[in-house]
Amino acid sequence: MTTIKIGQVGLGRLGKVHAQNVVNHIPNAELWAVASIVQEELDFARNVLGVRHCYDSYTDMINNDELDAVIIVSPSGFHTVQITQALEKGLHVFSEKPIGLEMRSIESVVQKIEEKQNLVFQLGFMRRFDASYQYAKELIERGELGELTSIRCYGIDPHSGLDSFIAFASNAASGGIFLDMSIHDIDLIRWFSNSEFKSVYALGNNIAAPKLSEYSELETGACLAELENEVIVYLLAGRNAMHGYHVETELIGTKGMLRIGNAPEKNLVTLYDSNGVVRPTSHHFPERFREAFINEIQTFVDAIIGNKNSVVTGIDGLKSTEVAIAMQKSFDEKKVIYL
Amino acid sequence: MTTIKIGQVGLGRLGKVHAQNVVNHIPNAELWAVASIVQEELDFARNVLGVRHCYDSYTDMINNDELDAVIIVSPSGFHTVQITQALEKGLHVFSEKPIGLEMRSIESVVQKIEEKQNLVFQLGFMRRFDASYQYAKELIERGELGELTSIRCYGIDPHSGLDSFIAFASNAASGGIFLDMSIHDIDLIRWFSNSEFKSVYALGNNIAAPKLSEYSELETGACLAELENEVIVYLLAGRNAMHGYHVETELIGTKGMLRIGNAPEKNLVTLYDSNGVVRPTSHHFPERFREAFINEIQTFVDAIIGNKNSVVTGIDGLKSTEVAIAMQKSFDEKKVIYL
Amino acid sequence: MTTIKIGQVGLGRLGKVHAQNVVNHIPNAELWAVASIVQEELDFARNVLGVRHCYDSYTDMINNDELDAVIIVSPSGFHTVQITQALEKGLHVFSEKPIGLEMRSIESVVQKIEEKQNLVFQLGFMRRFDASYQYAKELIERGELGELTSIRCYGIDPHSGLDSFIAFASNAASGGIFLDMSIHDIDLIRWFSNSEFKSVYALGNNIAAPKLSEYSELETGACLAELENEVIVYLLAGRNAMHGYHVETELIGTKGMLRIGNAPEKNLVTLYDSNGVVRPTSHHFPERFREAFINEIQTFVDAIIGNKNSVVTGIDGLKSTEVAIAMQKSFDEKKVIYL
Amino acid sequence: MTTIKIGQVGLGRLGKVHAQNVVNHIPNAELWAVASIVQEELDFARNVLGVRHCYDSYTDMINNDELDAVIIVSPSGFHTVQITQALEKGLHVFSEKPIGLEMRSIESVVQKIEEKQNLVFQLGFMRRFDASYQYAKELIERGELGELTSIRCYGIDPHSGLDSFIAFASNAASGGIFLDMSIHDIDLIRWFSNSEFKSVYALGNNIAAPKLSEYSELETGACLAELENEVIVYLLAGRNAMHGYHVETELIGTKGMLRIGNAPEKNLVTLYDSNGVVRPTSHHFPERFREAFINEIQTFVDAIIGNKNSVVTGIDGLKSTEVAIAMQKSFDEKKVIYL
Repeated sequence: MTTIKIGQVGLGRLGKVHAQNVVNHIPNAELWAVASIVQEELDFARNVLGVRHCYDSYTDMINNDELDAVIIVSPSGFHTVQITQALEKGLHVFSEKPIGLEMRSIESVVQKIEEKQNLVFQLGFMRRFDASYQYAKELIERGELGELTSIRCYGIDPHSGLDSFIAFASNAASGGIFLDMSIHDIDLIRWFSNSEFKSVYALGNNIAAPKLSEYSELETGACLAELENEVIVYLLAGRNAMHGYHVETELIGTKGMLRIGNAPEKNLVTLYDSNGVVRPTSHHFPERFREAFINEIQTFVDAIIGNKNSVVTGIDGLKSTEVAIAMQKSFDEKKVIYL
Repeated sequence: MTTIKIGQVGLGRLGKVHAQNVVNHIPNAELWAVASIVQEELDFARNVLGVRHCYDSYTDMINNDELDAVIIVSPSGFHTVQITQALEKGLHVFSEKPIGLEMRSIESVVQKIEEKQNLVFQLGFMRRFDASYQYAKELIERGELGELTSIRCYGIDPHSGLDSFIAFASNAASGGIFLDMSIHDIDLIRWFSNSEFKSVYALGNNIAAPKLSEYSELETGACLAELENEVIVYLLAGRNAMHGYHVETELIGTKGMLRIGNAPEKNLVTLYDSNGVVRPTSHHFPERFREAFINEIQTFVDAIIGNKNSVVTGIDGLKSTEVAIAMQKSFDEKKVIYL
Repeated sequence: MTTIKIGQVGLGRLGKVHAQNVVNHIPNAELWAVASIVQEELDFARNVLGVRHCYDSYTDMINNDELDAVIIVSPSGFHTVQITQALEKGLHVFSEKPIGLEMRSIESVVQKIEEKQNLVFQLGFMRRFDASYQYAKELIERGELGELTSIRCYGIDPHSGLDSFIAFASNAASGGIFLDMSIHDIDLIRWFSNSEFKSVYALGNNIAAPKLSEYSELETGACLAELENEVIVYLLAGRNAMHGYHVETELIGTKGMLRIGNAPEKNLVTLYDSNGVVRPTSHHFPERFREAFINEIQTFVDAIIGNKNSVVTGIDGLKSTEVAIAMQKSFDEKKVIYL
Repeated sequence: MTTIKIGQVGLGRLGKVHAQNVVNHIPNAELWAVASIVQEELDFARNVLGVRHCYDSYTDMINNDELDAVIIVSPSGFHTVQITQALEKGLHVFSEKPIGLEMRSIESVVQKIEEKQNLVFQLGFMRRFDASYQYAKELIERGELGELTSIRCYGIDPHSGLDSFIAFASNAASGGIFLDMSIHDIDLIRWFSNSEFKSVYALGNNIAAPKLSEYSELETGACLAELENEVIVYLLAGRNAMHGYHVETELIGTKGMLRIGNAPEKNLVTLYDSNGVVRPTSHHFPERFREAFINEIQTFVDAIIGNKNSVVTGIDGLKSTEVAIAMQKSFDEKKVIYL
């Protein structure tokens, strides 16, 4: 059995998820090396995950001749450079979203990806690999909903993370709520509709977190958009869901409609207590998308071994970023933006 | 338009429901008279409902020559006598359940009902008149579930009434949980299955209300029964539902299954809050069966006017009581009882 | 007991609902007279409902000196004139929505309503009287959701009515989907938010009914709006719900969120069959809002008897129409409209 | 990192699930050897899973000196002998349920397990390892439901397997529906209640599959039981669920109630179509308990490595079998059986 040797950069919250998945759930991959500038992360990799090659420099890591591929989970600002470096070294690349923060560097990284046809590049839009999303995609492809007429996407982070986002926002720019959060939904919309965004119009407010206005950030952002195939799209992003991690997608078609995550049910338990009839909810993305994170890396590894095409491409990264930036511009300039 | 003149005995909690329904929602009936030994109840009838003929004696009331029919909502011990008296006076009779407390007097009242073929007699099994139950009945009659194989009925009163039941039980006998509560479910089972009970085996406990053991009452009673058509039946009665008034019926057939009241949803609201995803619940029978109470009286009045047969007969009262008594006997004697 | 004598104009589908409710469920009102130019409607009133005074002219009806109030269920184009005539006759007025079709005549009817302070005027926004909506309103007023941040309203008519709408649209103008359908939601948003619309931006498509484009009508209309208190609003109106009559409202607040009609559940039955786990759905507005239609007329009658203020005013009619017209204009002109 | 070398006997439907899990999802275990008398199963192990040591004899396999542990997924009749042989060889044992088919041999295998204190023995009650069941167990242990008063367990296999069961039953004995199916629920009840069965009373019918009566099998079996701590238990087992694989557990306590699998939801998708509002359902145990099967083997391997006690013991196997046999006896003899 072929085994892919992977080097991963970044072992923060999401980085740990990927690293543990490679070690425990991807039989034909090995976490051969890690790179981080945080000593605890390297210690974790060495002691808990048993990784033998630990580096404090990404460049050093990708110079390890045994590597086949890299997983990039570093801060977003490093993505374009690290993707380019890895591709030039002849390494397959899995990169977390976003592919980059501004269009010029994204365009050149996408060009680089296209030059390296023999290398697999995959972007971390894990929702596409979730069983519920795949089930929905299949229904749509089979025509069960008829032709799509409207799509609604909600991505609302749990209230429990609001304070730490406010603290973060006081020091750093997130890129805005659309680039930071809606990008997953933008990708889903492109994936489900097989169409591109034509126009966007965005609103936002900070009623639930007035402090964010000082940092030019939004607690709630909303966008009404039209796709090239006339489908109407509504996106809502937020940072204050009291009931958990609310990721919901609604697809209305000429023959029926469906919702994924109408309620972010944690499991199959229903409680009947003094509150009423209660479905406990999922509060964290690693819980909600546990299997999707495994599946996306398995798909990446299988594409390398099987010489298959990537299923989430650089173009997907470029297009979704372009739309997110247009949404932010629409909000800033208070007008409809045509793409 | 013909208007039926009704005299009602008893204006307690359920009595008030009936009286107000006659006044407000039954256009072809009039609450002509009431009888009660409680002065406040008579005052309520006169002042709030505008009833002109108020009596402190049932006998006096039924002597009012203008009356067409009576509604009996007195304590269960009076039912057989009052039904008999009214029938002998030539009055149509709607009586709350149970038809009576012991078999001999029930048998003679049923005989009296059968003698008076020209009078409508209807027993207060209101669940049959609930929109959800009627929808289920229709599905079954149309064969959508195929042949029935098993039925489950839950009737669990809300915790909020437990203390007052314990107080009541310290002074008086309820007849036992099966006669007091399960009788509604026994009727539903006979109605849905078109069959009769063959055997019953009952258990019970007072884990949630140990005090009830002192009064030979049960907080929880359960019964496994077999019908003559081999359908398996499970009944659960309880007095301690924390989440509300839990009346649930499950029908399993060869082609599908259905549940009525899987959750006692109060309305169409869903809350997403720190408890999770919550459906508020109904806590009171007058709320849950609000329309059923109207419908059953409307049906009674329409049967009088239209000379139609009663839809809940004396036999239904007799049979359901017989089964409830057998369940209690099974629990007391710890053995299977065959009917 | 005071009884209000009501004259009703119009006995079409919704007219019949109101007339039957007055006859059967409003104890302190009497359907004294009806007016219609359709003979079958007058026959129905006379023979089925027992109405004694039947007119083929609205003017004749309101000349009946015994009348206390009118219920107007005529085509929308007649509303402003008929309201004005009735008020001038000294009659209390309940009028179906919309209050009128264009702003000038609405403004003058609203002025008339304000002059006649001693007369009750109520507009037919029945959703406010639905138990689920009232429950939600109460939660909001009690602060259970905190401050509102975003509202979503869906009003999607069942597919079963699409063909007849297409036929209708080939001959007549509906006023556009926003005036025809979203006006209920606009009213709900004003009611829940205690705020007014600041801006609207609308899109629409006819993917599910291309024919409608020929008649300048929309099958799907959508609008992103901002209220004066910064709350973000999304409305979706449609004419092609395969699963039934989908009226849904979502309220997101700083402390929690709620949905009314997340699924248009018909009753408390759940089916478990070869389709999966199925909640049957409501397909008609008279079913979904059965009790709301009763409650709104009861409220109107009680306001007359008790000398109370109207709860749905002429201003509510004027404001909601103004917003609906702005939405249509936004769609037509493809730009954001500020109110 | 220590790696446990596992030999597995049996590679049928469930056997394949276990073998693939060991290969793909248990990082500290290796599928070192397999034994089967079916050539295709050995080919699958060698070619698809890459297993190097393939045997056509269980005895030969356990003679492989490198083995640390065995996984037994052979027909139930072999379990006691194979468990005993493995333990005598000094191997840790994971065995599928049931531990055996009749009490005498089970007792001696349990004695053998207890002698071999240093070896881990774990029985395949995978439901205990399902996220929903573990969540429920935790709530109960934390006292969130108060003291348990009643438990209901449903295990209804999908209709799609009924014909093949009828074919199977024409040739072989399943041991009866209680031993074949309810044993999982019996184990869950003992686990949740921390109590033992005191009495059982069982009924059954074949309305949905009359043919089964010829083979002394049941399509539907039901049992009302009492535990030593007075908790009332109801079990229903069936072979004809039209909607999928219905495994449901209800726990009623003095402070609240909960249900696991009220509906066997397949994922987070809700469909709104001409059937109503539909939750797609899970139709197969490998789908429903996918993660539980992984978790139970991971727990077994971790217990070996960490020298921990087994969490599903031989006693659990013996007790659950004893109860299932008593249920069958109750049905056969039509009387209450006391344990």
